[in-house]
Amino acid sequence: MVQAPPRTVFAAMQPDLDRVSERLEMVAAVDYPMVSTLVLDIVRAGGKRLRPLVLLLAGRGYDYDLDPLVTAAAGVELLHTASLVHDDTIDRAALRRGKPTLNSVLSSNAVILLGDYLFAQSAILAAATGDPRVVGIFASSLADICDGQLHEMFHAHRLDQSRQDYERRIYGKTAALFAGAAEMGAIIGKAPDHHVAALRSYGSDLGMAFQIVDDVLDLREGTQKLGKPAGNDLRQGTVTLPTMLYAATLPAGSAEFAMLESVVTGEDVDDDRLAEVVAAIRASSALDDAIAAAAEYIDRAKEAASVVEDDDTRRMLFEVADLALGRDS
Amino acid sequence: MVQAPPRTVFAAMQPDLDRVSERLEMVAAVDYPMVSTLVLDIVRAGGKRLRPLVLLLAGRGYDYDLDPLVTAAAGVELLHTASLVHDDTIDRAALRRGKPTLNSVLSSNAVILLGDYLFAQSAILAAATGDPRVVGIFASSLADICDGQLHEMFHAHRLDQSRQDYERRIYGKTAALFAGAAEMGAIIGKAPDHHVAALRSYGSDLGMAFQIVDDVLDLREGTQKLGKPAGNDLRQGTVTLPTMLYAATLPAGSAEFAMLESVVTGEDVDDDRLAEVVAAIRASSALDDAIAAAAEYIDRAKEAASVVEDDDTRRMLFEVADLALGRDS
Repeated sequence: MVQAPPRTVFAAMQPDLDRVSERLEMVAAVDYPMVSTLVLDIVRAGGKRLRPLVLLLAGRGYDYDLDPLVTAAAGVELLHTASLVHDDTIDRAALRRGKPTLNSVLSSNAVILLGDYLFAQSAILAAATGDPRVVGIFASSLADICDGQLHEMFHAHRLDQSRQDYERRIYGKTAALFAGAAEMGAIIGKAPDHHVAALRSYGSDLGMAFQIVDDVLDLREGTQKLGKPAGNDLRQGTVTLPTMLYAATLPAGSAEFAMLESVVTGEDVDDDRLAEVVAAIRASSALDDAIAAAAEYIDRAKEAASVVEDDDTRRMLFEVADLALGRDS
Repeated sequence: MVQAPPRTVFAAMQPDLDRVSERLEMVAAVDYPMVSTLVLDIVRAGGKRLRPLVLLLAGRGYDYDLDPLVTAAAGVELLHTASLVHDDTIDRAALRRGKPTLNSVLSSNAVILLGDYLFAQSAILAAATGDPRVVGIFASSLADICDGQLHEMFHAHRLDQSRQDYERRIYGKTAALFAGAAEMGAIIGKAPDHHVAALRSYGSDLGMAFQIVDDVLDLREGTQKLGKPAGNDLRQGTVTLPTMLYAATLPAGSAEFAMLESVVTGEDVDDDRLAEVVAAIRASSALDDAIAAAAEYIDRAKEAASVVEDDDTRRMLFEVADLALGRDS
């Protein structure tokens, strides 16, 4: 279940977010009825629209020119959606947000193409802003996302990873698009350059925290809240911050370390063993420590957002930051 | 074997095409040594660089500002490469241009991501031109490519297709990017609007002819010239113009029609049966008739290119058109 978000920021921004959704639905109207329905379903499933929200808020404190902001926000959300579609193909995920993924109903060929099609549509939206800087940020964000995912793939199944490796990975995978969204919003709003930079930092730190929380939730929560089984990252050999922090507490030769290693390397693919490791991580301080690391990012994000002079907007940026940290799904 | 192209246009344009290749190699320098080598290999395999050539030539008759033209040309070639990478994943092709594809050495997951990475890099190049119109054309070309490929996928294994279906498909799959390349070149060259439109038509008609010739070659030539077995399209259930023209000559209830149908629908996946159908198509007038259709597109392309006042450039545009029609690989 997706928990109802706090009223204030969403209540205030809902009409503008609705315009983003309308824009997305226009894009989803493709010529192939079957495909069109599928694309609409993905777009409507849509989660919390946090990236569009960040983009709109970053512009809100300045020249709040809603039309190009909505266009860019729809582009960012669609880029995110396209990347999820390919990601699910890669993971062969059967569920996302508790719903069947495209992979479970279409051939992976069709899913690759649909993902590409969504990338194309998102690029058309970015281009429609008419701002070459915005398009440049958009394209770089996509490159960063791919970099993060390639990094994750080439570092999978290995426990010998540094915190820096992890941070680079989640920057690419998640924070880059939050950073880009905030930067685009500020640029379209014609914010002064140092505000653009500060809002980019806000987005980046927010995104880092968001992904760390995601990685904690993957271990802490189960199918009911996430719509996917717990320990999914471990099952795929993806080593996240909580797992790293847990591993660091284990003596090198211990049975616990050996068990963790066998799960991460994929030597042991037994579900019971995975459940044991998940339970051991939950029993350790690793989840709390990871949340503390996320909280540090959120503090930095808020510090960066302090540059925004409009009280209302600044308060909402803070609220989104708190929301990212406090969510349980 | 790739046949040596006629000297003149390539001799004249080689230095500029070399700059495009340099630009492409810079982009291929990724952070992961293994990936970097693979990307460099794909980029260097590179074929004839016809799309960059068309883009450069479209600008050449006007304000030939080489730097943005080279940037856009590299972007177009990389977009094409990215789309080939995903296409090979979808077709599970083992060979392209006689070389092993990425699929034969990497997991399909890694290949999807590498394709996405190349899309991102191509979009960065398009954005680097700093021209929102160019970026818009770029993004639309990608959407058209996906549309063409989705159309191909959803129309596979069916003989009941109209010539219009086929044309829409090859426009998306191939002609859209040639059209976009010519249009971008003309825009960057600051050609007058009606020249931009004429050069776009040139690119579009050239691309249509190029794909029809490709479809003929798939049936006419074998592994030696193409680096892939003959009748590959039929094997995948893709009905191309020569197959349509051949089918139109067969009486509805005939054994030949039934055999063709069983191969196209995928009911009969026997290699000998496929070879029989390929031989029957070769023995018919279908290949010649398809080439005649391509020749009509080439005539129209040349007519459109007549608008170019610079003699040298116009001659080269004509030469490229003749080259597309006359090639045998």
